[in-house]
Amino acid sequence: MFEFCLQGTQGAARAGTLTLPHGVVQTPAFMPVGTHAVVRGLSAADVRRTGAQIILGNTDHLHLRPGESVVHSMGGLHRFTTWNAPMLTDSGGFQVFSLEGLRRIEEDGVEFQSHIDGSLHLLTPESVMQIQWQLGADVAMAFDHVVPGQSAYEAASEGMERTLRWLCRCRAKHQELADPVRQTLWPIIQGGVHEELRLRSLEGTLEQGPWTGIAVGGLSVGEPKPVLHHVLELLHPAMPAGIPRYLMGVGFPPDLLEGIARGVDLFDCVAATRNGRHGTAWLPTGRLNVRGAALKGSLEPLDPSCDCETCTTYPRGYLRHLFVVEDILALRLVSIHNIRFLVRLGEQARAHILNGTFERWSRQWLDCYYAGGE
Amino acid sequence: MFEFCLQGTQGAARAGTLTLPHGVVQTPAFMPVGTHAVVRGLSAADVRRTGAQIILGNTDHLHLRPGESVVHSMGGLHRFTTWNAPMLTDSGGFQVFSLEGLRRIEEDGVEFQSHIDGSLHLLTPESVMQIQWQLGADVAMAFDHVVPGQSAYEAASEGMERTLRWLCRCRAKHQELADPVRQTLWPIIQGGVHEELRLRSLEGTLEQGPWTGIAVGGLSVGEPKPVLHHVLELLHPAMPAGIPRYLMGVGFPPDLLEGIARGVDLFDCVAATRNGRHGTAWLPTGRLNVRGAALKGSLEPLDPSCDCETCTTYPRGYLRHLFVVEDILALRLVSIHNIRFLVRLGEQARAHILNGTFERWSRQWLDCYYAGGE
Repeated sequence: MFEFCLQGTQGAARAGTLTLPHGVVQTPAFMPVGTHAVVRGLSAADVRRTGAQIILGNTDHLHLRPGESVVHSMGGLHRFTTWNAPMLTDSGGFQVFSLEGLRRIEEDGVEFQSHIDGSLHLLTPESVMQIQWQLGADVAMAFDHVVPGQSAYEAASEGMERTLRWLCRCRAKHQELADPVRQTLWPIIQGGVHEELRLRSLEGTLEQGPWTGIAVGGLSVGEPKPVLHHVLELLHPAMPAGIPRYLMGVGFPPDLLEGIARGVDLFDCVAATRNGRHGTAWLPTGRLNVRGAALKGSLEPLDPSCDCETCTTYPRGYLRHLFVVEDILALRLVSIHNIRFLVRLGEQARAHILNGTFERWSRQWLDCYYAGGE
Repeated sequence: MFEFCLQGTQGAARAGTLTLPHGVVQTPAFMPVGTHAVVRGLSAADVRRTGAQIILGNTDHLHLRPGESVVHSMGGLHRFTTWNAPMLTDSGGFQVFSLEGLRRIEEDGVEFQSHIDGSLHLLTPESVMQIQWQLGADVAMAFDHVVPGQSAYEAASEGMERTLRWLCRCRAKHQELADPVRQTLWPIIQGGVHEELRLRSLEGTLEQGPWTGIAVGGLSVGEPKPVLHHVLELLHPAMPAGIPRYLMGVGFPPDLLEGIARGVDLFDCVAATRNGRHGTAWLPTGRLNVRGAALKGSLEPLDPSCDCETCTTYPRGYLRHLFVVEDILALRLVSIHNIRFLVRLGEQARAHILNGTFERWSRQWLDCYYAGGE
């Protein structure tokens, strides 16, 4: 269980297979986000049909509603949501540190105020392990101290060092609680945009290992793209090759290819569903506004090269009409396309890595996408 | 084409088969309403999985958005919506006469103001035929003058007589326009709650025949249930047996059984999806509030006796959670159940009519439903 096998590489790019209790994940792969135990607006069957192999849940949101004890009493997240495939829960670190309701950060943990009823909640490394074990995803994430993007050295260092100390407590609590064949724990590398801190974070994390996977957090939070790329390039040679690498919160189409080229295996991001809800579809030629008058009466598919339910079924003119009359089916259909778009990008990248054609294909793909005006 | 064969009867209740250009409808049957060329929040595949055999579109709404010429240029409603099965469009009569924007009723037609942009639109028997032919449903409805529920004799008589005169114009225009193997025209009986007017409306309509189907309109608009039942009982012996009878705008679960018992073959109503969106599910024991705290943590299906996608997949506790976190998936899943509930009621009624057990079954069904507190 939790084995990761590499089937091929090209440069830093990797094609692998991750075995989890609820199934296998072929990488590189995009993981749709189901914040409230639902990928916004989509049924489990919708998500399955996109080819997604693994989805995320958000620990802090599920802690508030419906509460981990409710999910646990119903047999865990898989049974609760009817998603019978791999799942990962984040630790809530990113969420509580970006919340307006954040109250108090201490060595013990973080106090935050519920956005729902104003109640106060304390998250500690131990409670976060407890919650995630009760939720029952295949992969639990360590509780991390996330600092704002481009934080100065001092602040980034403090968050990174605390993340290392919390990792030690997470590991101890997870070993005490969790059945090791049903859930694994992955650490998160912090350190902001500072090379030295990123390397120290990786080193300190690996010292506490071994791990079955490793995540890079605190990126895509406002820093320029080249900085993100540089951090990935810096970490790549120092990362163990035999475990999957998860770049947290990253997932616009070009980001996937740039990340894969730098050794990333797993991605997650709400952009696919958020853009879908707002009527923005991703195409190989860039973004398309599905509300646009140009689509009126069009019999073309949204993306003629796409094999998703939306593109193989509905004409553009009908999708636009659904936005005009404000039917919620519109949000769902464009979300389905956008998720399939990212899932397929992972599938295509994998095939090209295995064929040794990733680099050329990726360059052409990005040229075409940016030429569309993204 | 447009043939209707009776397979069996029990008392006034009938089991028949209606053949339309896009497929066959086994009756009695509930027809989900797709006001804007979409059954609110549901994909064509969702609706198909409920077992629905025929759906409705609203002529006046589609005239405003996207406009019949757009639908026509895209190949008609079937291709526009991807619903490759029978469809019916109403004539807009009920809508324009219940609109606040209603401006002017004259012998020629009705002027109304768009609720979208305030523009003025004239609907005449001729234009309504033109619009419906361009939309391209299997069945077009005649343009009728609908009067408020329980209107006095004078007003009801005026609307009924005008409906007869308009029917003559509708028929002439439809014969001029429409390919008779691709679309048929059904008349609508009016006359309010007045026996004499209802019989006169039926007589005047049949004089203009023959027809391939006939509708009863202007009911379920505020009159007491016994009055509705009385009108149906009055019309039953005078209606031709060999064509389907459509009771317009009626479709709460008990209404279906009461209508079927009085010879009705087809029903439509927005209640299934409207209740679904508001979190009210229909069960054999009456209504259930899916938002209710009692459902928290429940692993039971919404309706253990139901075979719909929602009931065979999701636990009640998850459906409630979706309403609590305000995910639109909630609206869709309960709408799917409610539609399946009505479609299945039609299927069950049909089987019991063919078995000669309709009356007993129907009485038991209604007892159980009302015992639940409906």
